[in-house]
Amino acid sequence: MLGLMQAVPLTVDRIFDHAATWHGSREVVSRDADGLVTRATYAGIHADAKRVSNALAAAGIRPGDRVATMGWNSARHLAAWYGTSGMGAVLHTLNPRLFLEQIAYIANHAGDRLLIADPGLADLVGELLALVPSIERVVFFCDGASLPETAYPALAFDDWIAPFPAEHAWGQFDENTACGLCYTSGTTGNPKGVLYSHRSNYIHALMTLQRDALGLSARDTVLLVVPMYHANAWGVVFSAPAVGAKLVLPGQRMDGESIYNLIESEGVTYSAAVPTVWQMLLQYLEESGKRFTTLERVTIGGSACPESIVRKFRDTYGVDVIQGWGMTETSPLGTVSVPNAAVAAMNDAEQMAYKLKQGRLLCGLEMKLVDDAGQRLPHDGKTPGRLMIKGPTIAAGYFGGEGGEVLDEQGFFDTGDVSTIDAQGYMQITDRAKDVIKSGGEWISSIEIENIALGHPAVAQAAVIGVAHPKWDERPVLICQLKPGAAATAADLIAWLDGRISRWWMPDDVLFVDEVPLGPTGKIDKKAIRARLTGYILPFAADN
Amino acid sequence: MLGLMQAVPLTVDRIFDHAATWHGSREVVSRDADGLVTRATYAGIHADAKRVSNALAAAGIRPGDRVATMGWNSARHLAAWYGTSGMGAVLHTLNPRLFLEQIAYIANHAGDRLLIADPGLADLVGELLALVPSIERVVFFCDGASLPETAYPALAFDDWIAPFPAEHAWGQFDENTACGLCYTSGTTGNPKGVLYSHRSNYIHALMTLQRDALGLSARDTVLLVVPMYHANAWGVVFSAPAVGAKLVLPGQRMDGESIYNLIESEGVTYSAAVPTVWQMLLQYLEESGKRFTTLERVTIGGSACPESIVRKFRDTYGVDVIQGWGMTETSPLGTVSVPNAAVAAMNDAEQMAYKLKQGRLLCGLEMKLVDDAGQRLPHDGKTPGRLMIKGPTIAAGYFGGEGGEVLDEQGFFDTGDVSTIDAQGYMQITDRAKDVIKSGGEWISSIEIENIALGHPAVAQAAVIGVAHPKWDERPVLICQLKPGAAATAADLIAWLDGRISRWWMPDDVLFVDEVPLGPTGKIDKKAIRARLTGYILPFAADN
Repeated sequence: MLGLMQAVPLTVDRIFDHAATWHGSREVVSRDADGLVTRATYAGIHADAKRVSNALAAAGIRPGDRVATMGWNSARHLAAWYGTSGMGAVLHTLNPRLFLEQIAYIANHAGDRLLIADPGLADLVGELLALVPSIERVVFFCDGASLPETAYPALAFDDWIAPFPAEHAWGQFDENTACGLCYTSGTTGNPKGVLYSHRSNYIHALMTLQRDALGLSARDTVLLVVPMYHANAWGVVFSAPAVGAKLVLPGQRMDGESIYNLIESEGVTYSAAVPTVWQMLLQYLEESGKRFTTLERVTIGGSACPESIVRKFRDTYGVDVIQGWGMTETSPLGTVSVPNAAVAAMNDAEQMAYKLKQGRLLCGLEMKLVDDAGQRLPHDGKTPGRLMIKGPTIAAGYFGGEGGEVLDEQGFFDTGDVSTIDAQGYMQITDRAKDVIKSGGEWISSIEIENIALGHPAVAQAAVIGVAHPKWDERPVLICQLKPGAAATAADLIAWLDGRISRWWMPDDVLFVDEVPLGPTGKIDKKAIRARLTGYILPFAADN
Repeated sequence: MLGLMQAVPLTVDRIFDHAATWHGSREVVSRDADGLVTRATYAGIHADAKRVSNALAAAGIRPGDRVATMGWNSARHLAAWYGTSGMGAVLHTLNPRLFLEQIAYIANHAGDRLLIADPGLADLVGELLALVPSIERVVFFCDGASLPETAYPALAFDDWIAPFPAEHAWGQFDENTACGLCYTSGTTGNPKGVLYSHRSNYIHALMTLQRDALGLSARDTVLLVVPMYHANAWGVVFSAPAVGAKLVLPGQRMDGESIYNLIESEGVTYSAAVPTVWQMLLQYLEESGKRFTTLERVTIGGSACPESIVRKFRDTYGVDVIQGWGMTETSPLGTVSVPNAAVAAMNDAEQMAYKLKQGRLLCGLEMKLVDDAGQRLPHDGKTPGRLMIKGPTIAAGYFGGEGGEVLDEQGFFDTGDVSTIDAQGYMQITDRAKDVIKSGGEWISSIEIENIALGHPAVAQAAVIGVAHPKWDERPVLICQLKPGAAATAADLIAWLDGRISRWWMPDDVLFVDEVPLGPTGKIDKKAIRARLTGYILPFAADN
């Protein structure tokens, strides 16, 4: 027997209709590359998004076609986002920080027909056009006066949409219709595309709006530091309009001073960011002696947040730093490290241990730890296992069938992360599966050693790599980048780690580098480090 | 093109699986009619719910069959709830406070095959069995020792489920499968059944978990005063387990002292209740001089909450009273009166005006005001219109086709309420469509006059009824019940209203009664008042 409730599909155009109808005058503030701040409203962007739908239709874009954007966070980007998905086309967010060849591979793989890009990327777009024949048309996120001069035909966004009416019938399709496409950077093999549905994005928005998740409210002013080309910007592109939060879109400039000024001038209460940006902001605060007057809380994700940042923000600046975990394939939010009742009742030191984990699972998802044979492992906070996840916001496969079957027999997706889950349900990533160091049949967590090494006052970046060892299979080596002007020896680092990690986890060597290589998304590029270590032989390996 | 996300259906068994897996040790506290408090956990109730599924299957209950419960809020009731819906049967919550004939009508209409009832209702169940031949089996929410002696065969819940294993394959069906059935009290015609789906209940739970809705967290202890037989207990039966909030189920006793003691002994932080219970609680606090030590906020719904209650709780007891609006057909939450940014920036007096409205629409729903011809009316805070609502949590029709087609051409459901919507998006109920007083072609809000009359220190209850008038069609009459020991004259009441309402809204008469009649759900029974007023003639009607 079926229920007798309304068959209203969960399509994201309804979220933006809601914002325009019930929070129409709420501001969306954009800052461009020159620092110029422009103000729009949800109602105004909604009208522009409708114009985008009409402009796309006039350009021959049909439902299911891929429309690429490549730009920083801005109101125009938001209009393109909803204008594309609202008419049933697929918004494909390209990451401009990838290498040209990667972007070209991705755009070709997606079969993008139209590209809307930041005017500052005009040269990159030109190179791209030569490599991606499917792109028929280029539009730049700007007005006519700012249109860059290019050797190829291009339109200014404002001129492109201006002739069209602000009316277009959105939605009216199955909620499982593809909504957005985002490629993972692909640590092994080629980048793979995650094809979000309207349903998955809508449910993800609702899941993340819980008080124990991002907890946005109509009273929040949200600084969206996470780029819109990173996994739906953690869904904030949907959740902020859903509740009528004011949205502040910082464009390209991510230095501490720019971010700080935007927070203060716009009265930001909440932000979502990766730790590197937050570290730069912290540095600026310490150097300038400035303080926040409105900021309340920040969700940090993308990689683990060092304890020093969490403490500094909380104790010195009164800002609650909340870790989250997710990935492109999980829409992205999977866990959030907010206290449950038992943790909230603990003392500060005990609570901090939980705060530094990646957190508790959102309702709507299932999560399990398994060994290499796929058997479930205990939630004892000690046993590491492959982290598997399931739910309506989790990928079932990749665009074009890349990567083949990615779910196990119970329908769980393999995150490629190795983690523990404790008795309170808190998940902690201990490694990427490919980075875990297998020594004498046991797993050593490279991330845990890195985090402790980062606590040394002289260390700016730390990476731990497994190096082949004749007896133990692999042994850890610590690669350190020191802070400018700081000094430390290998013996200093070993002494620092001593007592803080198990004796058998102790790195067999400490190497110093000028710069730990970072990938295009700001994460440590261990592939590059391994390449550099080719031919390296552990000291005394033969003796061990 | 369809997205490539996991096809995981939104079925409510997943919510309870989540609670058992990730919040398994979180307590569910029940108090029975004798005041005895028992403690269970989500994991324990989950196991019992699985046993219920097996017991139902053994009793020949198949998916789609209706299983009725008739009882107060308790852990056993919760186990019956999830055990029934988890195996695909339909949980039909009967309201024991209705008249026998109404309950019999409803149970017959639903075709209930099995009835699980509170042992205190054994006599009522006996009478019911004589009238409802479809009920094959009776179970009482109790252990074997507490099984009431009855002339008909009955089982104790604990004995009934004990033989069965705590394993049963839940879900595995379409998310649109019927989940629960709840009849509206039916102000006109027969009661009509709202048939919730798993999807509608799941989406409703997510919608209400927003910080700007009920905003429950894992750290909350929730006192569920709203009965589970009232529209999913406002969805808290789903939302509290979803986040791992501790649940306190108060059973039948709703007097101020019982409620207060439970709040204090269990550390309640949040509650959901109708105003009458909260008024009794306030009275107890004032008489006893007691104060709350843990309570933070309360959602009030079912009828408008007088300003005096809102102020007293906030100013004297530090508890935030938040109004909500909804109905059985809306799952039930539709609007919540939490401040948006503009309202939050206002001064206290201005904010209070919004706090007393029924509030802002939840994202996921659409709402409109229309005139009698179905044309949209402005959101100016002044123009009253019929309130229409649409969304995946809103009824599309009634069980068995009762009431026929209930949606307009755009798919909106007619709430039967008359309301205004202001420029900030706040909806305020001004009347039930059938209670609105039409005087000289304009609408007079009976509710607004009642609320103001209730502000008079001597008035305990107030009802405003339209009475036929030869010139103006209808004129308002105020019916008052005074507080014990208090005194006031008709002239006092008229003087109180003078200046607080428009002159042409002024009641033509004030009548005093010992008791304003209340319906079975605690709302003023205007049908009964109108019946009593039969033959009443307005004073001076001929002169006006």
